Amino acid sequence: MTNPSLDDPQVFKRYDPEGMMNHLHRLPQLCQQAWQMALDFKLPPDYADIDKVLVLGMGGSAIGGDLAASLAQAEARLPIIVCRGYELPGFTDAKTLVIASSYSGNTEETLASFEQALKTGAKKLAITTGGRLKDLAQERGIPIFSFDYQAPPRAALPFSLLPILCFLYRLGLISDKSPAVAETVPLLEGLSSRIDETVPQSQNRAKQLARRLYNRLPVVYGAGITAEVARRWKTQLNENSKAWAFHEVFPELNHNAVVGYQFPEELASRIVVVLLHSALLAERTQLRYLITGQLLERAGVSYQTIDGEGQSPLSQVMSLVLFGDYVSYYLAILYKTDPSPVKAIDFLKQQLTKG
Amino acid sequence: MTNPSLDDPQVFKRYDPEGMMNHLHRLPQLCQQAWQMALDFKLPPDYADIDKVLVLGMGGSAIGGDLAASLAQAEARLPIIVCRGYELPGFTDAKTLVIASSYSGNTEETLASFEQALKTGAKKLAITTGGRLKDLAQERGIPIFSFDYQAPPRAALPFSLLPILCFLYRLGLISDKSPAVAETVPLLEGLSSRIDETVPQSQNRAKQLARRLYNRLPVVYGAGITAEVARRWKTQLNENSKAWAFHEVFPELNHNAVVGYQFPEELASRIVVVLLHSALLAERTQLRYLITGQLLERAGVSYQTIDGEGQSPLSQVMSLVLFGDYVSYYLAILYKTDPSPVKAIDFLKQQLTKG
Repeated sequence: MTNPSLDDPQVFKRYDPEGMMNHLHRLPQLCQQAWQMALDFKLPPDYADIDKVLVLGMGGSAIGGDLAASLAQAEARLPIIVCRGYELPGFTDAKTLVIASSYSGNTEETLASFEQALKTGAKKLAITTGGRLKDLAQERGIPIFSFDYQAPPRAALPFSLLPILCFLYRLGLISDKSPAVAETVPLLEGLSSRIDETVPQSQNRAKQLARRLYNRLPVVYGAGITAEVARRWKTQLNENSKAWAFHEVFPELNHNAVVGYQFPEELASRIVVVLLHSALLAERTQLRYLITGQLLERAGVSYQTIDGEGQSPLSQVMSLVLFGDYVSYYLAILYKTDPSPVKAIDFLKQQLTKG
Repeated sequence: MTNPSLDDPQVFKRYDPEGMMNHLHRLPQLCQQAWQMALDFKLPPDYADIDKVLVLGMGGSAIGGDLAASLAQAEARLPIIVCRGYELPGFTDAKTLVIASSYSGNTEETLASFEQALKTGAKKLAITTGGRLKDLAQERGIPIFSFDYQAPPRAALPFSLLPILCFLYRLGLISDKSPAVAETVPLLEGLSSRIDETVPQSQNRAKQLARRLYNRLPVVYGAGITAEVARRWKTQLNENSKAWAFHEVFPELNHNAVVGYQFPEELASRIVVVLLHSALLAERTQLRYLITGQLLERAGVSYQTIDGEGQSPLSQVMSLVLFGDYVSYYLAILYKTDPSPVKAIDFLKQQLTKG
């Protein structure tokens, strides 16, 4: 099967009729916008009286909570827990800030756990564009961070990530991330201009990596602030490229995954490991990246290291996110598939409605 | 490459010289022993004055914390968090019970985070056979749950799981699991007698599944109480079988992984998805198993559902664990590889010492 040239502008029109590319272009500005909206948002002052944060969400909304948690972890003096499922954790109480995050406002798991939260004394907050979640919150006077960016939920990531980070800052739990946002937005614009569809493959690292992942199984490794970025890559490869992909996290992967490079023997040549690296990671962790690279080499598994950019953890994280978004987009085009629709999820929701 | 007959007793002597099989045989009794030891353990009464539990550990020790947390979650009114890494979470305080779990007592990440915990007012406890962790705890009069079962850490799972569950009960955080243990031990013995090496493949479901996974990529799905069992399967396939393996969790996998069954096209026939199911799961979640099975079928991906056994969540979890342990063992034999050594980890530790 021959695949399209990523340097032919026609292929994007053909395989991306809904314009996923536009969402990638807009990601830097969406970060700016989401941060500013969150700064202006009316947050009840008593919400600062908490000792844990619980983010309810799934998929493209949950990952915003994961990334926020991984960015806040080093500073925050309270647990920030992302809950993906129907059940509200039993520890939810008046000292818990419950953030229900659902792009559509109709995610069934998020609604189920949020409805349980309504029966507790928890401080509650909704992040959504509408749906039942918005109605439920409105009826009860629960603050709603409402936005109207029209996109597949995963392309609206800034709205599920930056508000949470901003609220943590405004509640006095972490430092002000405005300087980090100010660094990140232009940095992402610069990165985008180096890897967008107008840059030929010969100079475009995202196109090059997509080529390399074509007809291969991508396995993405991360650590610390890049651990949840690895998950983001995996899910974007699933949803945009319609491709199998998995992720693993350092240092845990050094305790099991590295032993498994041997069988089936034929698989070694079918897998490409992508190591999401950041110069901000602890020295010992960076050493693990190097040694794991040696182990992959010895096992005949090819791999590539991608470095985050910028000084702030936010820049490092978001530059790796944007890079992965582009890679998954180009891989969709190489597979001659439209990155936007997620038919399997549509089928699933249909069947669940019947069930 | 022809592979060995799993019904020939000679192959186990040949490929399993260190006797991993004996550890599988002993798992049921180890559960009994670990539970009893934990009941008899001297636990400081003021340890009940906590509002979160933090388990520090990696690999085969961490998974005990994961399984305990997933079994306690429905009842416990406090967060139980497993921390895999060098950094102690910033929320660790006097109301935190920190359990450092390391089979050898020399796991570098666990020691690093435990040493940070020593500088906090947290309630501390060590689970180990010795090493530096035991010394550190001893010097400071920190309670040590000490055991001496000689085995690869992953084969000593009962000692990293049942004490945590027992301590949670004894601190008044969950109900008494003695009835569940009383159900689980004979149930595991019965299961073991149906899938151990003496039972011919024609009647042995674990041998049959191992055959099916041979030269395939296993991807293990779990949900709720089986979510962390899926991780256990993945790591046992890595470490025992030296094989690539991945795991995913419901309902999250319904938001991304299911979209990725399409590419690379050739991969569909190389993957076997194992669905770890439990009749105790919520109805809605069980429906998701069925629909996901349909999606796999439509994508031409073969899959197999394995059911947990018994009435109690503990029995369900441990029967699935034991089943997976046997499967990973048989798969090692089919690959003509010794299940015990983990040379990649040895290499890694060597290189880290230099670094």
